[in-house]
Amino acid sequence: MAYLNDNYLKLKAGYLFPEIGRRVKTFCDANPEAARRLIRCGIGDVTEPLPSAVIAALHKAVDELAVRETFRGYGPEQGYEFLRAAIAKNDYRDRGLEVADDEIFVSDGSKCDCGNILDVLGPQNRIAISDPVYPVYVDTNVMAGHTGPADDSGAYGGVVYLPCTPANGFVPEPPAQGVDLIYLCSPNNPTGATASRTHLTAWVEYALKHKSILLFDAAYEAYICEPATPRSIYEISGARDCAIEFRSFSKQGGFTGLRCAFTVVPKSLLASTGDGKFTSLHPLWHRRMSTKFNGVSYPVQRAAEALYSPEGKKQVRALVDHYLGNAKVLVAGAKAAGLTVHGGANAPYIWAQTPKGVTSWQAFDRILNDANVVITPGSGFGSKGEGFFRISAFNSRANAEEVARRLQALKW
Amino acid sequence: MAYLNDNYLKLKAGYLFPEIGRRVKTFCDANPEAARRLIRCGIGDVTEPLPSAVIAALHKAVDELAVRETFRGYGPEQGYEFLRAAIAKNDYRDRGLEVADDEIFVSDGSKCDCGNILDVLGPQNRIAISDPVYPVYVDTNVMAGHTGPADDSGAYGGVVYLPCTPANGFVPEPPAQGVDLIYLCSPNNPTGATASRTHLTAWVEYALKHKSILLFDAAYEAYICEPATPRSIYEISGARDCAIEFRSFSKQGGFTGLRCAFTVVPKSLLASTGDGKFTSLHPLWHRRMSTKFNGVSYPVQRAAEALYSPEGKKQVRALVDHYLGNAKVLVAGAKAAGLTVHGGANAPYIWAQTPKGVTSWQAFDRILNDANVVITPGSGFGSKGEGFFRISAFNSRANAEEVARRLQALKW
Repeated sequence: MAYLNDNYLKLKAGYLFPEIGRRVKTFCDANPEAARRLIRCGIGDVTEPLPSAVIAALHKAVDELAVRETFRGYGPEQGYEFLRAAIAKNDYRDRGLEVADDEIFVSDGSKCDCGNILDVLGPQNRIAISDPVYPVYVDTNVMAGHTGPADDSGAYGGVVYLPCTPANGFVPEPPAQGVDLIYLCSPNNPTGATASRTHLTAWVEYALKHKSILLFDAAYEAYICEPATPRSIYEISGARDCAIEFRSFSKQGGFTGLRCAFTVVPKSLLASTGDGKFTSLHPLWHRRMSTKFNGVSYPVQRAAEALYSPEGKKQVRALVDHYLGNAKVLVAGAKAAGLTVHGGANAPYIWAQTPKGVTSWQAFDRILNDANVVITPGSGFGSKGEGFFRISAFNSRANAEEVARRLQALKW
Repeated sequence: MAYLNDNYLKLKAGYLFPEIGRRVKTFCDANPEAARRLIRCGIGDVTEPLPSAVIAALHKAVDELAVRETFRGYGPEQGYEFLRAAIAKNDYRDRGLEVADDEIFVSDGSKCDCGNILDVLGPQNRIAISDPVYPVYVDTNVMAGHTGPADDSGAYGGVVYLPCTPANGFVPEPPAQGVDLIYLCSPNNPTGATASRTHLTAWVEYALKHKSILLFDAAYEAYICEPATPRSIYEISGARDCAIEFRSFSKQGGFTGLRCAFTVVPKSLLASTGDGKFTSLHPLWHRRMSTKFNGVSYPVQRAAEALYSPEGKKQVRALVDHYLGNAKVLVAGAKAAGLTVHGGANAPYIWAQTPKGVTSWQAFDRILNDANVVITPGSGFGSKGEGFFRISAFNSRANAEEVARRLQALKW
């Protein structure tokens, strides 16, 4: 008799974005007129075309695959050396951070990496996750059986939730109790908050003291404008001994449809066996990627490499500046609409408080129905997200301006 | 204190193909002269350029991503409808097999799918795996904690191994005891054997009787020449209630470097909860893919779709026929060299017996050193693979002919 993984039955409702998709589809089917003026600021998906350096690299790589002499089949499971080297040099060593080429693992997405990392970690780890948070961190722990069932508020047993509220500037402090794995995301999805050097230093010190591991999601690092704010966890002394970093080309190079990301696993990062012996996680992740993955599509890896060329870097900068410009417009519009607004300065997300007495999903339905704009309800990111909604700045400038206008016209 | 997944420490040595890669590199570094005449028939990696229909589709899709109006970001995690529909229609419904579009889940590789499927299955399942076998089935079960440690022969505790030998034509029969998950691969990697309708009917009947699930790996189905041999498990009545099928574009379309595959999970396939309630696995796999995956690169999905166009189909046929032609040449050469040979008729793999008293790895080293040809040692696929080696037919015709000559010149 074949058994299923019972942990899946603990999962609440659908994964957030498919749920939004279903509601939007229902609305559009019923309101074809309104559907035509719909503007999507829900899922954080880029809208602008790929940089021309990327397009050129893709065409060139495709042409290589058309000729026997330059054809490539299976690549290295961890990524081609040309890309691992470009990442380690440009994102780390040129910024004075020690990261070796073979500590970079190229993948098809940070979503995959954030979930898959649990493969090499033990079930007995105590997990700390901020609230609100990117749902993948929680859901993959539920699937892996690292939690109990959810209570009425949607909180899963056994997880240490770290509240992120206006009171702490949406950046959690280390908890009093010992936890083993801590998910941190800066710039934050969904709140748009960034962790300062002081915040991150406190977390690294905590992790070193408790021999914990920080799972640092830096998918939005390109959006940091303030020079003092760390863009990598490895800017903090000691982080190579306690942190894994996730990065993505999705939000800086516009790769959400192309699929490429990477994870940094320093060789000096140790974890304990069940009987208390510490050993490096690097070979375990290497083995995981060799066995359960077969590398990223070759043209896509060439496309990612092109982001590090001089033209590529300029084009990435222009793309990120475009979305940051939208964020400014949206912050100004939401404020003019009388909303209390956070984020949007070093991140492509605006975290707005709903008017008094309006829940997140009520705000979602109201904004969809009356303004024909899709946002993301804050409660979809955790119980502490209730009373907020997220506006994504990924759009054309014209759409961002129109959303700002519609928010101001909205009667609550 | 962060804990690692202790199950990884049970894994024997490196994954087979990286181990071969290391040995070949050592040999080539020490023998630059011989390295220049090296011919690789080890890892089953395609060598011929992508079909022109694929190249055209890739260029077109890349151009779409260069323009705002046709740009696409995140696609559906389960694959674009255009591809799921093309697969379900061409590979199944046009052949009289009932498979719905939304039972197709597009992924970046069968290797990934074969490993990831364990995410939705419970740890209490008893696993049956043929021996020899594609190492990923075993290793991913070890990683997931579904086995005990390995014994001296490399066999893991708790796994029911199904010996595949010349005596049973390398196709195992259902075991006497009840097992819950059974991995079947036809045409087989590594032996090149195919399971007949009689074989598969016996397995489906066994699975229905025991409420087991068949994990049917059909990555090489395009190589089946005999019309009577099933190309899909769903050709067997009742299979929709007990089988998941894995397919790949790697070996038919030459996609090993592009990365695209799919899994069929029929909605009628049930598995048991821990307390004995049967429920469909389809929503669990859907949820898994939504949460831990973000879809296949858009141009790659367009490339896969192109394989189903009239030109694409012709080009796939020519590509497969080319490799099957190589297999014929290699079978003839190996036989002329005095070796006992299996496979190579409905599969791109030749499964050759080593001369008496020669182990698989000894044969590997001898063929590498003296013939400068890379093969795969049979023992790398399991203990019953000892005394065999696999020759891959993925090569140019000239190389296949040269390998056939060198095998005949080899003195054992």
